Amino acid sequence: MLVRCYRGKLSVWAAMCVLVLCWFYVFPVYRLPRDKDIVEEVLKQGGVWQKNQTGIDLYRKLLTECCDPRRMFAVTKENSPTGKVLWYDGEFYHSHTVNNETYPLLVKSRVSPSDRQDNPLRLPLKKCAVVGNGGILRHSQCGRDIDQADFVLRCNLPPLSKEYVDDVGTRTHLVTANPSIIEKRFQNLLWSRKVFVDSMKVYGSGYIYMPAFSMKTGTDPSLRAYHALADSSSNLTMLFANPEFLRTVGRFWKARGVHARRLSTGLFLVSLALGLCEEVTAYGFWPFSVGLDEQPVSHHYYDNILPYTWFHAMPEEFVQLWHLHKSGALRVRVGRCSAQGGGG
Amino acid sequence: MLVRCYRGKLSVWAAMCVLVLCWFYVFPVYRLPRDKDIVEEVLKQGGVWQKNQTGIDLYRKLLTECCDPRRMFAVTKENSPTGKVLWYDGEFYHSHTVNNETYPLLVKSRVSPSDRQDNPLRLPLKKCAVVGNGGILRHSQCGRDIDQADFVLRCNLPPLSKEYVDDVGTRTHLVTANPSIIEKRFQNLLWSRKVFVDSMKVYGSGYIYMPAFSMKTGTDPSLRAYHALADSSSNLTMLFANPEFLRTVGRFWKARGVHARRLSTGLFLVSLALGLCEEVTAYGFWPFSVGLDEQPVSHHYYDNILPYTWFHAMPEEFVQLWHLHKSGALRVRVGRCSAQGGGG
Repeated sequence: MLVRCYRGKLSVWAAMCVLVLCWFYVFPVYRLPRDKDIVEEVLKQGGVWQKNQTGIDLYRKLLTECCDPRRMFAVTKENSPTGKVLWYDGEFYHSHTVNNETYPLLVKSRVSPSDRQDNPLRLPLKKCAVVGNGGILRHSQCGRDIDQADFVLRCNLPPLSKEYVDDVGTRTHLVTANPSIIEKRFQNLLWSRKVFVDSMKVYGSGYIYMPAFSMKTGTDPSLRAYHALADSSSNLTMLFANPEFLRTVGRFWKARGVHARRLSTGLFLVSLALGLCEEVTAYGFWPFSVGLDEQPVSHHYYDNILPYTWFHAMPEEFVQLWHLHKSGALRVRVGRCSAQGGGG
Repeated sequence: MLVRCYRGKLSVWAAMCVLVLCWFYVFPVYRLPRDKDIVEEVLKQGGVWQKNQTGIDLYRKLLTECCDPRRMFAVTKENSPTGKVLWYDGEFYHSHTVNNETYPLLVKSRVSPSDRQDNPLRLPLKKCAVVGNGGILRHSQCGRDIDQADFVLRCNLPPLSKEYVDDVGTRTHLVTANPSIIEKRFQNLLWSRKVFVDSMKVYGSGYIYMPAFSMKTGTDPSLRAYHALADSSSNLTMLFANPEFLRTVGRFWKARGVHARRLSTGLFLVSLALGLCEEVTAYGFWPFSVGLDEQPVSHHYYDNILPYTWFHAMPEEFVQLWHLHKSGALRVRVGRCSAQGGGG
C-alpha cells in the first residue's frame, strides 16, 4: 500500500515537471530579453538602417522553400479545385472540401503571356509597407511614408478615419479581416450588412484577406463577407488565406523560436511581404507598454483594449522582426517618421 | 380476465370512433358538394354578378368586429411597442417579445390631421383585386382587369414575367411572402441576397407582407428579408403579418365551416380586402383539377407542382368564396376576362 502511494506521488510529480517544461517552451518569457533591454537596443540602433540585398534574397528563398507564398498564400481556383480538401490550420481533424458553393468564390490567379504566374496579385511588388496596429503609430507622422509604398498591407480592418491619416496613411492594397471581427462588429452578417459594406469602402479597391479555413466557426462568416461584398458590387476582392500557407509559415517561425499557439496576423503578413516584395518596411509593430521615450504606449493606435487571451507571443515575434531589421532584410519603423532620429 | 379484455376492446373502439369523427370534422369532404356540382353551379351563375352593398357592409362589419383588420393586420409600432408579446399563431406555446432589434423594423401607421387612422396603408382602398395563383388564370386575359384595380394584392411572390402579363397583370400593391419561400428559393438569405433583392423589383414600390411570427422557424428568415430590402434601399416596404390578426381571421372562417389546419394565404388576403376595400374582386381562385370547359387546369398558373401536404382546405374555402360571390359581397372571376360569358 505504501509503495503504491509512493509511486502515485512520483508520477504526479513527473507530470507536473513535464507540464512546467511545456509551459516554459510555449511561453518562453525566460528566454526573452527584458523590455528595457529591447528598448535600449532599439535606441542604440537608432535611425540607422542598411538594406542588405543578400539578406532579402536569403529570406525570400527560405520562405519560398518552406511556404511558397507566391502560389500558396491564398485559396485560389488553381491550387484548390473542386474536391480539394482544405484542412483547418487552427484546429485538429476538421476540413472543408471545396464544393460547388465555395469554388466560384475563389479568386483566379493572373496568367499573362509574358509573365505566367500563379498568384492573384500583380507581381513583382516593389516597396511594401506592412502596417501593424500598435499604439506606437500614434503621433508617428508615418502616414506619408506608408502611402508612398507601392503595396500597403494592413491588419484586422483597422480604422483609417481622418484623425489617424497623418500617422497611418490612407492607401490599402490588402487588409486582413478575422472572422471574429465579423461576428463581434457585424453580428456575423446575419442581419443587416450595410454597416459592413459601407465601412469596407475605406479600403478602396484592394484585397480583403480572410482566414476562412483556419477555424470551423470562421468559415460561414467569411463566406457571408464574400457575398456581402459581391452583392453590393464592391471594388474590393475577397481572398481566403490558404490554411496550408498559414500552417507552413507557423512552422517556419516555430523552427526559429516563436512558440505561440498561433502567429499574429502581423507576422503572417510580414512573411508574405518578405516572400513577394522587393523591399519591406514594417510599421506599428511594438508590443511593449512603454515607448522609446519611456512614455506609456496604448495597445492599438485607436484604442487600448488588450487582447482577451494571450494567444500570440508578440514580444517574441518582435525580437524576430528586430533581428531581420538589424540584418537588413526588412526595415522596422518604431519612431517618428518625419524626424531624423528615433530608432528604426 | 375475459371482462378486462372485453373492456379493453371497447375503449379501443371508442377511441377509433372519436378519431374518425374528428377526421370528418377536420377534412369535411363528405360535407362538400362534388367538384362536378360546383362547376355546374358556377356555369349556371355565368357572368352574372350583382354588387350588393348591404352584403359588403355586413362582411366589413363582421370582420371589423372579429379581427379589426384596419388596426391589426400588420405588426406596427403602434399595436406592438417594445415589450409586447407576440404569440405565434401557427404553433403552440411560442412567442416573440418585441425588443430593441425588432421594434425598429416595424412599420409606422399613417396619421394625418384630416383622417387619423391606425394603419400603414393609405385608406380607404376603393377597387381591390386579390390575385390567387390558380392555373385558372392561364389564358384568362385578366391582366388588364387586374391592373385597373386601385389596389392589387398577390400571394406568395408569384412570377410576373412577360409571358404571364396578359393573364395576371403587372401592378402589385401588396404581395405576401411565406418564410418557407425564403428558405427554399433564397437559401434563407444566409449567403448571397442579390437574387432575392433583384427578383423583388418586379413588385414595384408596394408592400411585402410576411407572416414572420406564425412559426418560430419563420422569424429569422423574415427579419433577414427585411434587412436585405433595407440594405439595398429597395422601394418595397416590409409588413409583418400580425399573428393575432391571422388567429382571429382563422377563427372567423372556422365558425363558418372552414376546418383546415390553417387558412390559405388567399383567404387571409380576401378577408383583409373585405375589411379594407370598398369593392373586392378575386382572381385565380380555383382549386379543382378541371376548368369550366372540362379541360385540365394546372395547380398554379406558372407550374403544376402540387402542395406537399394537404395543409389547407382549398375546395372548402372556394365554397365560401362562391357564397360571397353569389351574395354580391365580392366578385370571383374564374372565366376569361375579355370574353362576355364564362362564369364569374
